Amino acid sequence: MYRTHNCGALRMADIGKEVTLSGWVQKSRDKGFMMWIDLRDRYGITQLIFTEEKTPPALFEMARSLGREYVVTVKGTVIERSSKNDKIPTGAIELEVLNMEILNISKTPPFTIEDETDGGDDLRMTYRYLDLRRNPVQQSIIFRSKLAMATRKYLSDTGFIEVETPVLIKSTPEGARDFVVPSRMNKGQFYALPQSPQTFKQLLMVAGLDKYFQIVKCFRDEDLRADRQPEFTQIDCEMAFVTQEEILNTFEGLTKHLFKETLGVSLADFPRMTYDDAVRLYGSDKPDLRFDMPFVELNELAQGRGFPVFDNSELVVGICVKGEAENNSNKDIKKLTEWMQRPQIGAKGLVYVKYGQDGSIKSSVGKFYSEEDLKAWGDKMGAEKGDIVYVLSGETDKTRKQLSELRLEMGRRLGLMKAGDFKPLWVVDFPLLEWDEESERFHAMHHPFTSPKQSEIPNMLNGDHETMKNLKADAYDLVINGSEIGGGSIRIHDRALQSKNFKLLGFTPEEAEEQFGFLLGAFEYGAPPHGGIAFGFDRLCAVLNGQASIRDFIAFPKNNQGRDMMIDAPSIISGEQLEELGIDLALKEEV
Amino acid sequence: MYRTHNCGALRMADIGKEVTLSGWVQKSRDKGFMMWIDLRDRYGITQLIFTEEKTPPALFEMARSLGREYVVTVKGTVIERSSKNDKIPTGAIELEVLNMEILNISKTPPFTIEDETDGGDDLRMTYRYLDLRRNPVQQSIIFRSKLAMATRKYLSDTGFIEVETPVLIKSTPEGARDFVVPSRMNKGQFYALPQSPQTFKQLLMVAGLDKYFQIVKCFRDEDLRADRQPEFTQIDCEMAFVTQEEILNTFEGLTKHLFKETLGVSLADFPRMTYDDAVRLYGSDKPDLRFDMPFVELNELAQGRGFPVFDNSELVVGICVKGEAENNSNKDIKKLTEWMQRPQIGAKGLVYVKYGQDGSIKSSVGKFYSEEDLKAWGDKMGAEKGDIVYVLSGETDKTRKQLSELRLEMGRRLGLMKAGDFKPLWVVDFPLLEWDEESERFHAMHHPFTSPKQSEIPNMLNGDHETMKNLKADAYDLVINGSEIGGGSIRIHDRALQSKNFKLLGFTPEEAEEQFGFLLGAFEYGAPPHGGIAFGFDRLCAVLNGQASIRDFIAFPKNNQGRDMMIDAPSIISGEQLEELGIDLALKEEV
Repeated sequence: MYRTHNCGALRMADIGKEVTLSGWVQKSRDKGFMMWIDLRDRYGITQLIFTEEKTPPALFEMARSLGREYVVTVKGTVIERSSKNDKIPTGAIELEVLNMEILNISKTPPFTIEDETDGGDDLRMTYRYLDLRRNPVQQSIIFRSKLAMATRKYLSDTGFIEVETPVLIKSTPEGARDFVVPSRMNKGQFYALPQSPQTFKQLLMVAGLDKYFQIVKCFRDEDLRADRQPEFTQIDCEMAFVTQEEILNTFEGLTKHLFKETLGVSLADFPRMTYDDAVRLYGSDKPDLRFDMPFVELNELAQGRGFPVFDNSELVVGICVKGEAENNSNKDIKKLTEWMQRPQIGAKGLVYVKYGQDGSIKSSVGKFYSEEDLKAWGDKMGAEKGDIVYVLSGETDKTRKQLSELRLEMGRRLGLMKAGDFKPLWVVDFPLLEWDEESERFHAMHHPFTSPKQSEIPNMLNGDHETMKNLKADAYDLVINGSEIGGGSIRIHDRALQSKNFKLLGFTPEEAEEQFGFLLGAFEYGAPPHGGIAFGFDRLCAVLNGQASIRDFIAFPKNNQGRDMMIDAPSIISGEQLEELGIDLALKEEV
Repeated sequence: MYRTHNCGALRMADIGKEVTLSGWVQKSRDKGFMMWIDLRDRYGITQLIFTEEKTPPALFEMARSLGREYVVTVKGTVIERSSKNDKIPTGAIELEVLNMEILNISKTPPFTIEDETDGGDDLRMTYRYLDLRRNPVQQSIIFRSKLAMATRKYLSDTGFIEVETPVLIKSTPEGARDFVVPSRMNKGQFYALPQSPQTFKQLLMVAGLDKYFQIVKCFRDEDLRADRQPEFTQIDCEMAFVTQEEILNTFEGLTKHLFKETLGVSLADFPRMTYDDAVRLYGSDKPDLRFDMPFVELNELAQGRGFPVFDNSELVVGICVKGEAENNSNKDIKKLTEWMQRPQIGAKGLVYVKYGQDGSIKSSVGKFYSEEDLKAWGDKMGAEKGDIVYVLSGETDKTRKQLSELRLEMGRRLGLMKAGDFKPLWVVDFPLLEWDEESERFHAMHHPFTSPKQSEIPNMLNGDHETMKNLKADAYDLVINGSEIGGGSIRIHDRALQSKNFKLLGFTPEEAEEQFGFLLGAFEYGAPPHGGIAFGFDRLCAVLNGQASIRDFIAFPKNNQGRDMMIDAPSIISGEQLEELGIDLALKEEV
């Protein structure tokens, strides 16, 4: 037996007991006549003590020989510490070691195994098994486990059944790129890894399973932006015989439960906002509502006064930043303007109006507008003495996106996005389709299985092109603090409507049949009305912990090139394997 | 709102209530002036009633128009049934329908949606969404969900952390064949899908996670035998600082808990048997102990008496079948002998000795052995009056396998393998290595990471070839009713020992480094002693339900050619996809 207790267990009440512990050498302090070692495991740290007086010389020597991260098992007596450490739960005691065995030695780790490490990202990923020994990373992984358990318990307790859907499925070119798997038994054919279990969960509803969930790995072969992973995890859910209202209530309940269970935070009822309002008021379909600072449109007040930039703009829109008039010098504003003009944001310029504490009004467009004009802007925007207003103009969509960036930057600079403050929001009434000017075709705003609102069905079946652009769907996102953590919709359950949607999305009837014939077929055998939602589980972990990156909530993440640095995957495979699979490499020489 | 109650909810106490139900039309009975419809959902069946007297004619007409599997929502009043059905929980009431809407129609299903269906396997798999509507299949899927939840709860409550390991990993030719995934971002390179998370769970132990579990999909590209799936699910577990004893106790605890939770069955402590004993006594490393009927070796008593077949055999071994002497005519025994001689078993012949109720002894080898000889056999085998003894002989391994088949067949014929009777068994002390005469190399009996017993380590590091053949490992299987439902081992945590094992298994040092360098490297940074186990989750579901096949416990299984008949996968992918992935098809024309 390697231990009677773990390294976080011993307390004053254990004094006098003879115990066995096992763990890693975190650090040692050698005073010559006395020596202490911090022994670490997942559960905590216990201090070991060796003294010239009591420790046999050979044992003392062995203790001195231990390096960082050596693995030992020790037997000893629990004694009271003379100087207690109230920062750790075991800080009142220490272990007077009687016996020790070195279970394994360790080379010096390539970075320090401390809360703050000196290791860079690549090094940490290559030695992820050492990075995972660090308390913050280990706690993130443990948090994830708890969150998954709490999710499963809540959903099981409310009648949901967890069903495993297959990982080896069929490639469908719609949406993102699939990872594919060549089939040896069916040469020339491929499985695909699921981007989500969407069609399977719908089939489970057709099958009468009624309430389904699964915490499930999904796969997308996309060019990886920062903080995207080729494999990621979803809480995937579907219900039959439900309206949007019931789905929102069910998963608002889940979300509240998870916050309560894992953080002890009680969330109030979630507000709802239409997609159109979110975009109009915050320039984003995932507004961070930890602070308000809504957009105010100024077209009426700012156009037709002879300022050509505004006059020629589709939209003139601003935000009011409270109490910041005096804190921003012309130099500061110049720098901010340059920040807005970077290619990532692409604003042409930035107009400001300062409403001074002394009643003065100063603006970069002062020569085009009277003080009365600027006062009217301020009134519309709710600006008071001491506030500053920033205004952008241009093409509507672009301008909103730029102003959204500015709004978030103001939130960051003013500390308005507080850790521990959670502002959930349902964004509802998404458009069904999105017209892509470039490819001259519709894309599904959510996915091809999303239903238009009941009232829109006749429009969808018979409407013209303009009507299609304006169709609204029973589609919704759950947004927390500016992160989309979930999204879903009521689905189509009628073959004719689904076929129409495929047609709008540019599928020929043959392509629709080839790729989704099984689903269209299923709709002919009594498919019930149904809908669902999927949560990004990695993102949910991060948001609950106020972290920007999902990386530390994934035990073995891949880097931005899709590589696992630790195991060095992907890698080449043997010619024999390729032959068995019936494929050749078609590599062109890079020049 | 589609329903106020589900179809399994209403009772006498609800009489008089106005309720809304939704579901599928299971069947209807039309008496002309009166009509009943069984409305079905996941939760049960509720009877709807329509009467000439009370139902508006248009509604009655609509009811008559409904076909099997139509989806409807009905509003009505709960009334007491005149003739109650005590076979279903809602059998005391029926719903007098006031209002009905047809939510979806259905074509006539290709097979009956009943407990016993008329659909063949292929048809059921093609329309799996209809097959899943059948109660036994739906209950199997729900059982699986419950079993997973009970597993997770038990392991979480005992300090295990569920960690998701990656699905896109590295191909390693050892073991079964990998499914591989071409990487678009790293052309010419491939990920592999995990055959198990073995190395990752070991790295989690190196990382100090201490107690890990995961219910996880695994993948093997094998030629599918009956009841094998290319993707299957494991309960995968690992612990650090543990001995084999602690692992066996922990997972015996889990297994007992699962039986209690899902079946209400209390299992007694599991017996243990060494691999050598299991093979010697039952000819199998997974004996079905619902009945005993052990092997008895007769070499001493049967050789040297002038019967050349036995004299030239490595092993003479038999079983005693109680009370079956009088039930087997010579014709029966001839048929049984032919059954044993089929190529699947391959016995050369079958010797019997009947110990008659009248004290007579009859045997097919009576002319070679005296009655005294045969009596001595009987004594050794515990044969009493009325019993029959079957004896096989030949090369030891083959003979044991043949006799094991005979033993199981006797168990089946005599009804000794009772449903609801569960006989778990730990088989321990597996050999570390298995010598393959054909390829003249060692194979790992469990896997290449399994540790020899502590006492065997010096033998392994320094022993000769014969010593290697006899090394015993800390490896164990959990067997229930003749099915292996779990297996595991204490792992190697020392680089030198692991390297030695790779060498024995035929890896060059370069190959070992190329494929498992990350693990060997991890062993140099304070790897703790560790070990674990994995349960076949699909098989566990089947064994708990006394089912031979795992198929109905998988929502969307693949057939024996690895095809998903419903979605028709695998399938061809576009030339564009192939090009992006940097691969070509290398298909040869079949002649």
